[in-house]
Amino acid sequence: MPKDSAKSVCVVGSVALDSLETPHGNAPDVLGGACSYFAVAANFFAPVNLVGVVGSDFPEEERRFLVETGINIEGLEEAEGKTFRWHGRYHENMNVRDTLSVALNVFEQFNPKLPESYRGSEFVFLANIQPTLQANVLSQLLSPQYVGADTMDYWIQSAPEELKTLLSQVDMLSINDSEALQLSGEGNIVKAARKILAMGPRHLIVKRGEYGALQFSADEIFAVPAFPLEEVIDPTGAGDSFAGGMIGSLAEEGEVTSRTLRRAIVYGTVVASFTVENFGLDRLKSLTREEIDRRFKQFMAITDFQS
Amino acid sequence: MPKDSAKSVCVVGSVALDSLETPHGNAPDVLGGACSYFAVAANFFAPVNLVGVVGSDFPEEERRFLVETGINIEGLEEAEGKTFRWHGRYHENMNVRDTLSVALNVFEQFNPKLPESYRGSEFVFLANIQPTLQANVLSQLLSPQYVGADTMDYWIQSAPEELKTLLSQVDMLSINDSEALQLSGEGNIVKAARKILAMGPRHLIVKRGEYGALQFSADEIFAVPAFPLEEVIDPTGAGDSFAGGMIGSLAEEGEVTSRTLRRAIVYGTVVASFTVENFGLDRLKSLTREEIDRRFKQFMAITDFQS
Repeated sequence: MPKDSAKSVCVVGSVALDSLETPHGNAPDVLGGACSYFAVAANFFAPVNLVGVVGSDFPEEERRFLVETGINIEGLEEAEGKTFRWHGRYHENMNVRDTLSVALNVFEQFNPKLPESYRGSEFVFLANIQPTLQANVLSQLLSPQYVGADTMDYWIQSAPEELKTLLSQVDMLSINDSEALQLSGEGNIVKAARKILAMGPRHLIVKRGEYGALQFSADEIFAVPAFPLEEVIDPTGAGDSFAGGMIGSLAEEGEVTSRTLRRAIVYGTVVASFTVENFGLDRLKSLTREEIDRRFKQFMAITDFQS
Repeated sequence: MPKDSAKSVCVVGSVALDSLETPHGNAPDVLGGACSYFAVAANFFAPVNLVGVVGSDFPEEERRFLVETGINIEGLEEAEGKTFRWHGRYHENMNVRDTLSVALNVFEQFNPKLPESYRGSEFVFLANIQPTLQANVLSQLLSPQYVGADTMDYWIQSAPEELKTLLSQVDMLSINDSEALQLSGEGNIVKAARKILAMGPRHLIVKRGEYGALQFSADEIFAVPAFPLEEVIDPTGAGDSFAGGMIGSLAEEGEVTSRTLRRAIVYGTVVASFTVENFGLDRLKSLTREEIDRRFKQFMAITDFQS
């Protein structure tokens, strides 16, 4: 359970029904989308206000799961039509995947509106959606303490100006390494980080999948490996649950310092390592905070060379 | 300067003249080869006994450099013919390189013989050469305390039995991640490590280039990122100088424990980070132990989340 003193987290992004194929099997029509993974991960640390849209086909069972998990879904709009669907297949080594089909459905007209009760949210994550919509969500918040955002290659290419406007308004950007190089136009990640920090965010988190993460700010770098896993069943949602664990942990701590941010990145690393141990959200559904804290300690042991 | 109590290191492997092309420029006919990089790196920590072969064309200047650095080259044989030559070109992202030409020359008939004065060496590194020759060197040593070896895809494919015989006789194997997967036939690095440890070595070091390294033993894993660099000029020799820093640090400490091994891997990481900052051995030639120790402290700061 999160501490009683934990601050609230608001997340906006996609809620989807995914059909997943990996070398370990298939999982058809399971709850997915960046917003879902983030919310379930963050909820281990802090109360979560979810903003998203689903269609009238969204299974009652998944809605019940979110509510019973303790996630506030007052901001989960139900629109006429079908829920966003994604069908992906991972290659043998699982660092490569093909999108077999994608149907945005009701997500195409998504125009996020925050319920009154969400406006005071203190920690915010703008998952990967159109940058103008991300900025629009931001403008509906009263005075958030810390705002993080994600984006993707598609928006870097197709909406660079809107993205730059957004970046000038956020505290943190969390993207993967190839996106950081693309966004900055640099070939080296340290140079890329400097350029991206100059665009606005004071923290840049570079996700490197099975190789861990880097965090850059004006005056420091933090480098952390991933948790070494013997079996990866399904990599879907790793990055989003990483962000959820990270922002959730910051909200639980209540303040963003070099120390709380580093620990939060490790919490994100740990939660992501559980996510990929089963299909979709299955592992997170059975996960407990005790298991998270136990693996956090294991991770300390695995990375320590100073004692 | 290494501590007076440091034990001795013996290294056997290739001494070459490299012609290097990277996006940052060219360096023709510079001192290279695994043995050279390893020896220069290890020499910051402990006395080094080098075993290798060069041709009659080997520049007097490079020989003098090795001697003046303090490396014992009594075991550097001069054979009739030409020195091993390698000509490589790195692509724009520098994780990919093409071998434009390779001429083994005198290295083709290399049959390493240890001078009498080398036989008592306590720490040993068998750099990447034919596994039977590696075992042959091992048999010439009196009672080494700790033996590490490297190998490559070529020997994994062409001399699997000889390699297995060697692996049953070494304490440590240091290879890159794709080689570890190939050697084990596994697709996951943790599973691969378990299989390789079962072949003999009690320590497996998996090198992951710009992503750092993993160390496996029967009862623990150590994961460490690389030192984030703003500019990589030439990646040649990174892995061999990593091994040199690591084995050198162990020899300086005099004993191999979980703690000294982890610190040694970080020293290897730090030395490798200097190596790639300039062409060939140029950066290591000007490097001081003080700079190494300063970057070790920086690396502690960059990776710490526990204080």
